[in-house]
Amino acid sequence: MLFFQEELDNLKVTILKMGSLVEEAIGQAIQALVERNSQLARRVIDNDTRINALDVEVDEECIRLIALRQPTARDLRFITTAMKITTDLERMGDYAVDISERTLELNEEPQLKPYIDIPKMAEITQGMVRDVLQAFLERNTSLAYEVINRDDAVDELNAQIFHELLFFMIKDSSTISRAVKVSSISKYLERIADHATNIAEMVVYMDEGKMIRHIRHPEESS
Amino acid sequence: MLFFQEELDNLKVTILKMGSLVEEAIGQAIQALVERNSQLARRVIDNDTRINALDVEVDEECIRLIALRQPTARDLRFITTAMKITTDLERMGDYAVDISERTLELNEEPQLKPYIDIPKMAEITQGMVRDVLQAFLERNTSLAYEVINRDDAVDELNAQIFHELLFFMIKDSSTISRAVKVSSISKYLERIADHATNIAEMVVYMDEGKMIRHIRHPEESS
Repeated sequence: MLFFQEELDNLKVTILKMGSLVEEAIGQAIQALVERNSQLARRVIDNDTRINALDVEVDEECIRLIALRQPTARDLRFITTAMKITTDLERMGDYAVDISERTLELNEEPQLKPYIDIPKMAEITQGMVRDVLQAFLERNTSLAYEVINRDDAVDELNAQIFHELLFFMIKDSSTISRAVKVSSISKYLERIADHATNIAEMVVYMDEGKMIRHIRHPEESS
Repeated sequence: MLFFQEELDNLKVTILKMGSLVEEAIGQAIQALVERNSQLARRVIDNDTRINALDVEVDEECIRLIALRQPTARDLRFITTAMKITTDLERMGDYAVDISERTLELNEEPQLKPYIDIPKMAEITQGMVRDVLQAFLERNTSLAYEVINRDDAVDELNAQIFHELLFFMIKDSSTISRAVKVSSISKYLERIADHATNIAEMVVYMDEGKMIRHIRHPEESS
């Protein structure tokens, strides 16, 4: 039988693995979009089952640890936060699937415009996912705050992309259907960044007991 | 000192209260939209702090119950599910705020068209919120499945609203900015219904140990 500390460490490894699969899914989904690679898009969709399986695995392990180990208040907060965090990670994976679905549709038609801001957005978002998990696992609240601050840049890029697409739509209504799909992809990335921000706020709450997750700006209309 | 069963009952009452505030917020947000009532929209925004406060209250009470009462496996699953569910409820409240923000913006301009499908969507969504909480508190999985089935109707209405708005935008580009805002509101309602569906899937998982939350249709591009 393992010691509790080893079990906690194993749990952390599983969460890290889940996070890196999510990060990879985002990267591949955007690569598939930019390179118009439908095969890669389909791979992202298929691989989502691995992310989902890890979500269940973490949940079950957390329940088991709470029931059998009766952890201290500090560890208990870590474990219950882990259960919430994986729900957010799992939903990020769903958005990578959504991006891939739109990519498959877009690949049926000529490309509307070269993608410049969307890969930029994806890069920031992937960094947020990576860093927020590190913040959680190392209880590093200053890193969590830093992740929260990066969310504004993603929101701005999303708004900028939307206004650019609006310009296409107004000028030529035959672009509307494609422009809406591209705008959805940008919106999905923005949602993934929101989930990373939610996790960061939970990390701060876990460690400082301070609820910052509810002083959120309302969304932009894009 | 209270008995554990009484404490659990109190927890259920708090969750119910949170749910009814969310349901009310959705109803008032849509009423404010339809009646172009900016004062009511602002009230929905202000009242969101009450929903957020209950989220924290439930979280803290769950942690306390786990730490002090060492609940059985069955109760433990109920309590950890409660912690996840309130995160979804809190985010629904955020969407009611988002709807109200768009309403305030829309009230600055002439009305694009009468709202018929959006109130219909809101009614289904409110029913989903109400019923999924009942399903959770009474461990009624068949009601949870029923809630999941209703999500398709909301998705369809959202797609239908979007296509109608697209028609406006193509015909007259001066409507685009307003049409995008109305379409965002429809999308927010669709997200609220998604959160209700997520909760329903957690209820099924809690009771049947069956993971149905990951066999989800990918989103439509609207």
